[in-house]
Amino acid sequence: MTVSLALGVDLGGTNARAALVDRFTGTVVATHKLPHQERTPEAVVATIATAVRAAARTAGVEPGALGTAGVGVAGQCLGSSGTVLNAPNLGWRDVPLGGLLQAALGIDVRVVNDLSAAAWGERWQGAARGVDDAVLVFVGSGIGAGLILGGRLHEGGRGVAGEIGHIKVAPRGATPRRCGCGEWGCLEAYAGGMNLAARLREDAADGKAGAVLAAVGGDPARLSASAVEAAHAAGDPYARELWAEVGELIGTACANVVTLLNPLRLVLGGGMLLGCANLERIVRANVANGVLRAARRDFEVRRAELGDDAGVVGAALLGAGRHPHAR
Amino acid sequence: MTVSLALGVDLGGTNARAALVDRFTGTVVATHKLPHQERTPEAVVATIATAVRAAARTAGVEPGALGTAGVGVAGQCLGSSGTVLNAPNLGWRDVPLGGLLQAALGIDVRVVNDLSAAAWGERWQGAARGVDDAVLVFVGSGIGAGLILGGRLHEGGRGVAGEIGHIKVAPRGATPRRCGCGEWGCLEAYAGGMNLAARLREDAADGKAGAVLAAVGGDPARLSASAVEAAHAAGDPYARELWAEVGELIGTACANVVTLLNPLRLVLGGGMLLGCANLERIVRANVANGVLRAARRDFEVRRAELGDDAGVVGAALLGAGRHPHAR
Repeated sequence: MTVSLALGVDLGGTNARAALVDRFTGTVVATHKLPHQERTPEAVVATIATAVRAAARTAGVEPGALGTAGVGVAGQCLGSSGTVLNAPNLGWRDVPLGGLLQAALGIDVRVVNDLSAAAWGERWQGAARGVDDAVLVFVGSGIGAGLILGGRLHEGGRGVAGEIGHIKVAPRGATPRRCGCGEWGCLEAYAGGMNLAARLREDAADGKAGAVLAAVGGDPARLSASAVEAAHAAGDPYARELWAEVGELIGTACANVVTLLNPLRLVLGGGMLLGCANLERIVRANVANGVLRAARRDFEVRRAELGDDAGVVGAALLGAGRHPHAR
Repeated sequence: MTVSLALGVDLGGTNARAALVDRFTGTVVATHKLPHQERTPEAVVATIATAVRAAARTAGVEPGALGTAGVGVAGQCLGSSGTVLNAPNLGWRDVPLGGLLQAALGIDVRVVNDLSAAAWGERWQGAARGVDDAVLVFVGSGIGAGLILGGRLHEGGRGVAGEIGHIKVAPRGATPRRCGCGEWGCLEAYAGGMNLAARLREDAADGKAGAVLAAVGGDPARLSASAVEAAHAAGDPYARELWAEVGELIGTACANVVTLLNPLRLVLGGGMLLGCANLERIVRANVANGVLRAARRDFEVRRAELGDDAGVVGAALLGAGRHPHAR
């Protein structure tokens, strides 16, 4: 029996989330999330299979009847072979996830980067509905993008397209910062949530981030973008300077991508960007100023709409081979 | 009678060049170039038609037998409607070139940006042969790019993709420079040949570019990238500093595009870049250092191979709807 449901999985470093999605509307019908016990490929595949069966039970279908599935993974994926080349959060390198899942679930599986999946979800039924060229930029603990170009997901020659967090932005004269990827001067080293927290702890230790530290009750371990946002809202000069710098870096990077690719929509997502209204405003101002005039025709900036569902919806529809059409 | 030839036209601000190209091999069979007498759309279309007829005569075919043609235009083009939105060198805005040429030649015409056409030509039978994801960056009097993504030409939502010359790079602290596009801080404002010449004249007037000025016999009107290259080769400190800055700007911009799009090939073209060996070396070093490690897998930098033929070959094959296949 073939059903009108598609199976999507969002595989992060902490949890696996399975969802059954209506393959025509993109609506989430049932979902089940499980934490990883271990991070070996075998254990993770078993956890995914359990989550899939639980979601399928809720929806009243047999997993084997679904035909295909899509899995979004926080890492570099080679879609053509179903291999996860590198997933730092899971400690994986060259894991044949597609084949393993196929064996466990008895259905075809498409493996894709999690932000690519999220972009496809937003394209299908979120903030990028109706346009064939859209760029989705996510700013959370890290920074990444999903690219929809000419109506298709662009994954690049080796599956790592969209790594906007690792473009080099080191402002000349400023102290270069080292990124989690091991390289210097990456956008994420200055503007990603995890590196920002490290910088805040350094600055707090140097007595420079007093109002930000006060916003988290003086506990350096709780320093984060939200604390900067709170201090910014209260008019703190350190927070204002920091957001001006971070917002310019993110906004200019986004603007440059728009100038290069001429999408009609830029979708902003991720907890750090959507959770900090002042930062978002500064990013938007830098996008508005930075995009080449010719690329502004019919161009819009929107906030991501699907939240955590974007990844499972996109993965499910990619797995099912569904392509939305431009209006 | 249908023939195995495809018609390509390269429309610049000074000349129109028509070429008949073997639609299976991409070889140029006959070509004819004519200067514009006037730049009105009607006069330019008449010039193109004359050049096409001359090239067709050389090849021994009737233009009407060709079926379709492709035209590469130095400007923003909306391929879907055949409209040239903006071609500064011709002083054109919103010219329905496709329709005008169709009426003049009696065949279907595809209108495309000239660097997109050149990228397609290099993809077909030049430095990007055999790869489905390639970025071509051209540095001449201006700076631009052509993008082949997933085996297709990426023109963007409104036909202006590839404008790498107008990404914002203004180094913090340095004096922002105004670009020919009217905006500030564009890559082209610092690193394009025309703006570079203006900067050289300013610096020469300030007594700062002595060796470069000497390389052109003391004539400020002849200051150019070649003069900087000559002074650089002779060890001039001003030229070395300038090439270090320009090479870093171009190389980092290219590296960032590669990190974002994960192409397997970067093709460097344009007279300024290919004519200045020291600049090219510095650009390549900055690309090698700047690309995210994950995007280096199977990635190569090559020089453009087709020269002026790239545009007519690419336009002809785009017009004929020919798509090369990855090896």
